[in-house]
Amino acid sequence: MIHAGIVGASGYSGVETTRLLLRRNDVSLDAASASSSAGKRLDAIAPEFAGRTGIVLEEFTPSHFTDLDVVFVALPSGEGMKVVPTLLGGKARVIDLGGDFRLQSTEAYQQYYKLQHTAPGFLPQAVYGLPEIHRNAIAGARLVSNPGCYAMSAILALLPALTDGLVQEQGIVITSGSGTSGAGRKATADYSFSELNENVKAYKVVSHQHTPEIESVLSEAAGTDVCVSFVPHLLPMTRGIYTTIHATLKKPVSREEVLGRYCAFYQKAPFVRVRHDVPQIASVTRTNYCDIGIAVQERTHHLILMSVIDNLVKGAAGQAVQNMNIMFGLPEELGLQA
Amino acid sequence: MIHAGIVGASGYSGVETTRLLLRRNDVSLDAASASSSAGKRLDAIAPEFAGRTGIVLEEFTPSHFTDLDVVFVALPSGEGMKVVPTLLGGKARVIDLGGDFRLQSTEAYQQYYKLQHTAPGFLPQAVYGLPEIHRNAIAGARLVSNPGCYAMSAILALLPALTDGLVQEQGIVITSGSGTSGAGRKATADYSFSELNENVKAYKVVSHQHTPEIESVLSEAAGTDVCVSFVPHLLPMTRGIYTTIHATLKKPVSREEVLGRYCAFYQKAPFVRVRHDVPQIASVTRTNYCDIGIAVQERTHHLILMSVIDNLVKGAAGQAVQNMNIMFGLPEELGLQA
Amino acid sequence: MIHAGIVGASGYSGVETTRLLLRRNDVSLDAASASSSAGKRLDAIAPEFAGRTGIVLEEFTPSHFTDLDVVFVALPSGEGMKVVPTLLGGKARVIDLGGDFRLQSTEAYQQYYKLQHTAPGFLPQAVYGLPEIHRNAIAGARLVSNPGCYAMSAILALLPALTDGLVQEQGIVITSGSGTSGAGRKATADYSFSELNENVKAYKVVSHQHTPEIESVLSEAAGTDVCVSFVPHLLPMTRGIYTTIHATLKKPVSREEVLGRYCAFYQKAPFVRVRHDVPQIASVTRTNYCDIGIAVQERTHHLILMSVIDNLVKGAAGQAVQNMNIMFGLPEELGLQA
Amino acid sequence: MIHAGIVGASGYSGVETTRLLLRRNDVSLDAASASSSAGKRLDAIAPEFAGRTGIVLEEFTPSHFTDLDVVFVALPSGEGMKVVPTLLGGKARVIDLGGDFRLQSTEAYQQYYKLQHTAPGFLPQAVYGLPEIHRNAIAGARLVSNPGCYAMSAILALLPALTDGLVQEQGIVITSGSGTSGAGRKATADYSFSELNENVKAYKVVSHQHTPEIESVLSEAAGTDVCVSFVPHLLPMTRGIYTTIHATLKKPVSREEVLGRYCAFYQKAPFVRVRHDVPQIASVTRTNYCDIGIAVQERTHHLILMSVIDNLVKGAAGQAVQNMNIMFGLPEELGLQA
Repeated sequence: MIHAGIVGASGYSGVETTRLLLRRNDVSLDAASASSSAGKRLDAIAPEFAGRTGIVLEEFTPSHFTDLDVVFVALPSGEGMKVVPTLLGGKARVIDLGGDFRLQSTEAYQQYYKLQHTAPGFLPQAVYGLPEIHRNAIAGARLVSNPGCYAMSAILALLPALTDGLVQEQGIVITSGSGTSGAGRKATADYSFSELNENVKAYKVVSHQHTPEIESVLSEAAGTDVCVSFVPHLLPMTRGIYTTIHATLKKPVSREEVLGRYCAFYQKAPFVRVRHDVPQIASVTRTNYCDIGIAVQERTHHLILMSVIDNLVKGAAGQAVQNMNIMFGLPEELGLQA
Repeated sequence: MIHAGIVGASGYSGVETTRLLLRRNDVSLDAASASSSAGKRLDAIAPEFAGRTGIVLEEFTPSHFTDLDVVFVALPSGEGMKVVPTLLGGKARVIDLGGDFRLQSTEAYQQYYKLQHTAPGFLPQAVYGLPEIHRNAIAGARLVSNPGCYAMSAILALLPALTDGLVQEQGIVITSGSGTSGAGRKATADYSFSELNENVKAYKVVSHQHTPEIESVLSEAAGTDVCVSFVPHLLPMTRGIYTTIHATLKKPVSREEVLGRYCAFYQKAPFVRVRHDVPQIASVTRTNYCDIGIAVQERTHHLILMSVIDNLVKGAAGQAVQNMNIMFGLPEELGLQA
Repeated sequence: MIHAGIVGASGYSGVETTRLLLRRNDVSLDAASASSSAGKRLDAIAPEFAGRTGIVLEEFTPSHFTDLDVVFVALPSGEGMKVVPTLLGGKARVIDLGGDFRLQSTEAYQQYYKLQHTAPGFLPQAVYGLPEIHRNAIAGARLVSNPGCYAMSAILALLPALTDGLVQEQGIVITSGSGTSGAGRKATADYSFSELNENVKAYKVVSHQHTPEIESVLSEAAGTDVCVSFVPHLLPMTRGIYTTIHATLKKPVSREEVLGRYCAFYQKAPFVRVRHDVPQIASVTRTNYCDIGIAVQERTHHLILMSVIDNLVKGAAGQAVQNMNIMFGLPEELGLQA
Repeated sequence: MIHAGIVGASGYSGVETTRLLLRRNDVSLDAASASSSAGKRLDAIAPEFAGRTGIVLEEFTPSHFTDLDVVFVALPSGEGMKVVPTLLGGKARVIDLGGDFRLQSTEAYQQYYKLQHTAPGFLPQAVYGLPEIHRNAIAGARLVSNPGCYAMSAILALLPALTDGLVQEQGIVITSGSGTSGAGRKATADYSFSELNENVKAYKVVSHQHTPEIESVLSEAAGTDVCVSFVPHLLPMTRGIYTTIHATLKKPVSREEVLGRYCAFYQKAPFVRVRHDVPQIASVTRTNYCDIGIAVQERTHHLILMSVIDNLVKGAAGQAVQNMNIMFGLPEELGLQA
C-alpha cells in the first residue's frame, strides 16, 4: 500500500488527483491539506465526492506528510517552494504539480513568474516529470516537477521533430487554446461564466511562463538552443488544450515519413497517440492521452503539428499519477485507463 | 432632448441600459456613476463601447443627477433605496431597476430581501413598471419600479389567465431557468465558468425574492389572493430566462380558446408575442420581446404556459427604456426594435 | 469471463456502454453491430477509443450474438423490438436500453411512441430494470428493460414519497431539463450547435413517452394510480438531467422527517445519494449516481424534489451495466465507481 | 427608398442580412428566396422575426429580383455563380456574400473550392468588397464580392504592416478559431451540439479556401507576393472569429510605433478599432467592428497581431450592408451602429 498525501487538495488539480487516487486499491490517501478550506470535508468543496470519501481538509501540518510515501503538491506557483523543502526533509517523495521546480534557471523563473526563487538549492535534484524523455530519472527521483499543461502539449508535439532534426530550431510558432479550468478555481469577475462564455481572448501574449519551460526541455532534446513564440488563448470550455504549431522543415519530407518517425518515437509511450486524422479535444477529455496530428505544407515549408490533452489529466493530475507509478515501480498505465 | 443619467453604470443592467441609450438621438447620457470603478472610462469596463462613448464613471454625486430629466438606478437591491430619496428631492424622474420599490409590504421586503427597508415613505408613489397593466400610471410617475426579471416572465405568462379567471389562483407551480448574467457581475468561484459550464443548479428554492412580487401583481389582476410556488435554476448560458408554469384550469377549455384570449389580451402590447409554437430563448435574445407559448393538458386539467425573455432586456434595461418612452410621451417601441 | 455484445454500438448509449465494458477485466466485448457504420472500426466513429480497442462494427448478424452471455440493445425505440425476440431465441440474456419493453400496455406504447408494438408476446417477461425496486427480478431475468433517462430521474425522486404515502398521487408536476446527448447522435439542423447554444426550448410538452412509464412504475409503488404532468426541456449542455418536482403533501411534515425517510429508503442503493444541500448536475457527470435534494414549502403544502443524473450513465449505459452486474451475481457497483 | 432582395434568405448570412435591413427605414426588402424553404414564412425558419416581418420565402424567380436596386446573394459557394450572371443581366446591383467572385484566378478557385468556375467572364467586374482598400471601386461597382470571414479578420490585421513594409512577406503564420455559425445551417452529426460542445478541432489544415484570398489581397497591398500559412479551428461558441498572426519584422520596431501606424492607417475606417489592450470576441459580438491588438516580441523578431470580428456581421452581413451604403452614396455606418 502506497501512503499518499495531497497539499492543496481543494484546487482543481488537487481534486483531480484525489479522484484518480480514490480509484486505486493500492494507494491510501492519508492526508489532504487546503488552507482556505481547512476543517471542511472535501465533499463539501467537491460535491461529486459525496459518499466516496470522508476526508477532512486540514491546515498543512508537516508531520502529517513527511512520513508518507508520496506527497502531491498542488499549490499555485510560488507556494510550492515553501513546502517542498520541508517535505524533502522527511522521507516522503514529492511530486510538485506547480511551476516552482520546472526551470533550472532562477533568472528565468524570476523573469516569467515575477517571483524570487526561495529554494534554489533544491533545483538540482528536481527531475522534470516527462516520462517520454526522463523515465529512468523519474523512477529514482525524490522530487519530480510535473510539467506545465501548455508545455506538455507543445513539448510532446515537437519532441520527435526536434530530436530527429527535421525542423529548424528557431522561428517555431505555438498557438494554444485552453479551457478555463487551467486557471484554477477563480473568484474574479474576469473568469465568471458571463464573461467567458461566447468569448475568446489571448493573454500573456509574449510573457507566458511556460515559454522558457518549452524552450529548455526542447533545447535539451535538440542538442541546441530552441526558440519559440507562444501565444495562449482562453476558450469557452472547461477542460482541454488545443495546441497548433508551425515549424519550418529543414528539407522536404513527406507526411508519411513524419508520421512514421512519430509512431516510432512514441512506440513505448502508452499515453501518446499519433493520429492519422486531425486530433480533437473530445477524444482525450478526462483521459491521460495526448493525441498528435501532423500536416506538411510544401508550399510554405512548414511542418504543422496539432496536439490535444485534458489540461487537468495529462496536463496535471494524470501525469502526476503516471509519475507516481514510475517512481514506485508500477505499470505506467495503472489506474489511468478510461 | 432627454437628459439622462445612470447610477450603477458598470453592472450588467447598467451597461445594457447604456447600450440602449447610446442608440438614441433624442437622449443624452449626461452622467454615469459606478463607485467601484469611479475614475475609469466606461469602455475600460465594457470594451464593446470603445469608439462609441468617452463617458467616465464617477462616484455618485447627487448634484450631477438631480437636475436631469430621468435617472436609471441600476444598483443591487438594498442600494437603490439609499439614492432614490435624494434623486426624488430634485427634479429627475427615476426608474429603479433594483428590487427596493417593487413590494408595497415592508414586511415582505424584509422577509425576502433580508433587509430593513429604509425608505418606506417613498413606496406609495412607486409605480410598478409593467406597461401591460400600468401604462397610464407609468406615464405620470415620478418613480417607476422596474419589474424583476423572473417576475416579468411569470407575470406576463399568467396575467391573461388570471385576469380572465381561467385558472385556480392557488397551487400554481412556476419553474424557471436563467442565464448567468441575471446574477450580475460576479467575482466568486461559484459563478466562474468552470463551475457553471455543463452544470445546472436550483437555488433559493422556497425563498426567492421574486415570489411575493409575482403574487402581489397577479393578486391585483385576479382580484383575489394568488399563491405560487417558484423555483429558479441557474443554466449554462449567459442570457435568457425560460419559465414553465402549471396552473389548474377551473373548467375545461381548448387550447384555441386560450390562444384567442391571450392574443386579445396582448393586442396592444408591442413586445408580447403569443406564439402558436413552443417558445425558445434564442427568439428573444437581445430583444425586448416576451414570447409566450400555451398548452392544455386535459388529462391533468393543467394549463401549461411557457414564456421567454432576455433577462437583461425585457427583464431589465429594455423594460426600463420602454418605461422611459412612456413617461416622456414617446412611442413605446422607440429604440427597442431589432 | 462474461461474453458480451452490443447491438447499436455507434450511438451515444452504445458508445458509453462500450466505454464501461472496456474498463472490465471480467467482460469480453465479442460483437458490436451498427448498421449505419458496418465495416468501420469503432474508433473511427468514436476517436477516443483509439489505441484501446480494435473492434470493427458489423451488420447485425443474429448468430454472432445469440450465443453470448449478455447482449446490450442500444437501438432507437421501435428498432429494439425487431431484434430482441431473435436474441431471446438463443441463449443470451438481453438488456434493452430503448423504450420498446418499458410499457406493459401496448395501447400506451402506441399512443406515446406512435408505433404499433410488434413483439407484445415478450412484454410479460420484460423486467423493468430499476434495482431500487426490482433487484431480485432483475437477477433472474432473461430480458431487462432499462429505464428511460427522464423516467429514472423522476422515479427515483418520487419513489420514497409515494411508497410512504407522504404526497397526493394526483397533480404531481415534473419539470426536467436535459443535455443534448439525450437525443442521440443527431444529424438535423435543429440539433446543431448554432441552434442549441445559448438557447432553451421545451418540447413534447404534453406528449413525452416517458410520462406513462413514470406513472406506471410509481403507481405500482404507491398501490394506487399516480398521475403526473411532465414537461422536458432541451438545455445548452451535453450531459445531464435536472428534474424538479412539485407534489402536494397529504399532511404537514418537516424537511428533516422527509430527509430521514429518504435516507432510510435508499440505505442499500449504492448509487442514490440523498443530499442535504441542493443537487447540481456537475456532481454526477460521468458517474452512475443519482443525487436527490428535498425542500418542504409549508406555505403551499408542496414537497419539492430535485434530482440529477448523467443521462448517458445512470440514465442509460451505467444503469445497464449495473443491471448486468446484478444479473450475473456480481457486486452491483463493479466497474461503475469513479 | 432602396428596393432590395436576398437570394438565399434562410441561411445564417441571409437571416443576418435580413435583420440588418429590417432596421432600416430607407430600405424595402421586396423579395427573398430560399429554395429549400420556398413557400414558408421567414419567421417560421427564424422565429425571432415573428411580428416583425411577414415575408414569405420563394423559389428564386429572376424577374422578382432583376428590377430591384440591390440583391444580396447569400448562397453557398458554387451556387452564387449560377444566379449572379442572371441578376447582372437586369438592372440590379449585386453583393455576393459567397466565395465565387473573390478570386480572380479560376485555377486557384478550382484548386481550393474543388469546383469548375462557370462564370469566369464576370470576374473582371467583381470588386472585392473591402472598403478599407477599395472604397471608391465599391461605390461604382455593379458586382461586389464580399470578403470571406476568416479572410476579413486576417487581412485587416495584416494590411497596415504589409502596406508599410514592416514585416516580411513570407512565412506569415495565421491561426484562427471560429464559432460554429460560420459553417452555416448544418444538418450533420458533426456539427451537432453534442459533438462540438467542450471540443475544439482544426480543419482544412493546409487547404482552406480563404488562403488564396488572403494572399491575393495582401499581395496587392504589399506590391509583392505574400505567402501565408492558415489553420482554422472550430470552437465551442456560436459567433465570432479570433485570429492570431505571427509575422517576422524586417527591422526592430517598438509596439508604440506599430500602434501609431495602425491608428493612422485606419483613421477613416469607422469599423476598425486599433486597441491598446488584447482584443476579445465579446467586444465585437453582434457588431460590425473589427478590433485589432498588437504585440512585438523582440526575442523572436515577431510582430504578433490579434483580430476579432463577428463572423456573421463584419464577416458577412454587416460588411455587405456597409458595402450597400457605399454603393448608394449613404453614410458608411448607417444602420450598423449598436
